[in-house]
Amino acid sequence: MTYCVAISVDAGLCFVSDSRTNAGVDNVSTYSKMHIFGDGTDRRIVILSAGNLATTQGVITHIKKDIKLGNSENLYKMPHLEEAADYVGEVSVNQQGKHTSGGANYEASFILGGQIAGQKPNTYLIYPQGNHITTSTDTPFLQIGESKYGKPILDRIIAPESSLETAALCGLVSMDSTIKSNLTVGPPIEVLIYERDSMSSERHYRFEESSEYLREISRSWDTRLKEAFASMPPIAWSANWDDAERQRR
Amino acid sequence: MTYCVAISVDAGLCFVSDSRTNAGVDNVSTYSKMHIFGDGTDRRIVILSAGNLATTQGVITHIKKDIKLGNSENLYKMPHLEEAADYVGEVSVNQQGKHTSGGANYEASFILGGQIAGQKPNTYLIYPQGNHITTSTDTPFLQIGESKYGKPILDRIIAPESSLETAALCGLVSMDSTIKSNLTVGPPIEVLIYERDSMSSERHYRFEESSEYLREISRSWDTRLKEAFASMPPIAWSANWDDAERQRR
Repeated sequence: MTYCVAISVDAGLCFVSDSRTNAGVDNVSTYSKMHIFGDGTDRRIVILSAGNLATTQGVITHIKKDIKLGNSENLYKMPHLEEAADYVGEVSVNQQGKHTSGGANYEASFILGGQIAGQKPNTYLIYPQGNHITTSTDTPFLQIGESKYGKPILDRIIAPESSLETAALCGLVSMDSTIKSNLTVGPPIEVLIYERDSMSSERHYRFEESSEYLREISRSWDTRLKEAFASMPPIAWSANWDDAERQRR
Repeated sequence: MTYCVAISVDAGLCFVSDSRTNAGVDNVSTYSKMHIFGDGTDRRIVILSAGNLATTQGVITHIKKDIKLGNSENLYKMPHLEEAADYVGEVSVNQQGKHTSGGANYEASFILGGQIAGQKPNTYLIYPQGNHITTSTDTPFLQIGESKYGKPILDRIIAPESSLETAALCGLVSMDSTIKSNLTVGPPIEVLIYERDSMSSERHYRFEESSEYLREISRSWDTRLKEAFASMPPIAWSANWDDAERQRR
């Protein structure tokens, strides 16, 4: 599996992705799931991918080919980010349609985010069916892959006014919770912090499995979470909680 | 959906379950998913249920009928808890087999836990296929239903030497995270604390949606989690983390 998250705050966007791919538990490989497009002038587009590896590779190759050949439909010519999301959805549906035998699951999901000059930054989650959704003030993040383990911390921390640093740290903590609870998600972890109107992907970091920093985050969060839990008020079972009815049987 | 967890520690067992049942988002009802058996002398058995409500109700009814009729196979006559788990698995498979039309999902999962006098307390997760697994020292808890949101906190906190109070509190925090991230899990929340060798289900509590105590747990945990996050060391992106390679593109 995979875990990728894109966080959209007022200050810009933050993308976090893992790199573990598996076809069964004995066929585990490492592939980057973060694909960066744009020459830094009029646009910066990041695509995160999850699902069938042959499909996601096919889609990314197709996107790159369209750019290279200067085809009329390509990521560098789309006037709006939403059209880019439509386009990736179409490419994905076509790619999935090429292989239907064997009962395997050829589905793939994508997150496309970034900014085109003169427009607001935005992010889209593109479903295997090709349609897409974007973030809102109340839901300022999008996830693909093994999204459930890491959702509670995002739900609690992320708000539109969060800083990009908070978004990145929260994305890493969310990733850490997922790695801890699910074997199929793992390092290297990539983080890309996109500052609004910068058109830059300079702040792109990659943390290997051996990364001291990744371990430090993991240790710090583990310690703090345990401290937080230890400081919870003890259960007052015997106190007069009106509704803590003791049901004797 | 549903979320139920059973935690097995040296001091005994702890069960936590929600009560929300839904068939589509406009058909939401409240049903207890915690079923308690035993007269307090030679055994105490708790069954938690998840999945198709018609199936789980059918299974519980069947179990009660077998007891009432004094059938040769009934929960009060099984010499070992593991046989009780086998028996519930069989009843469940039979019940699921009765209804196969319409393409609906008739599957159900159960957690069976408790103690028979002279034996150790134990818990079993019974799959829809009727087979079952138990806990281990490394995995001292079992979950059914929407299990992913609430797993990270259990992974970090629960160990065999945890007290029953810690187990109950952790179960409630795990439930709170699940409720916060998933609409189909909700109060009333039931908690049963089973003290080893007590054969008693006296410590059985039920918290309504309006429960001040449930809200207090939710608020406390939310505050502490945010504080824990706020106290994380800031990201030292620019520091010399060996492997935080800056990839310029």
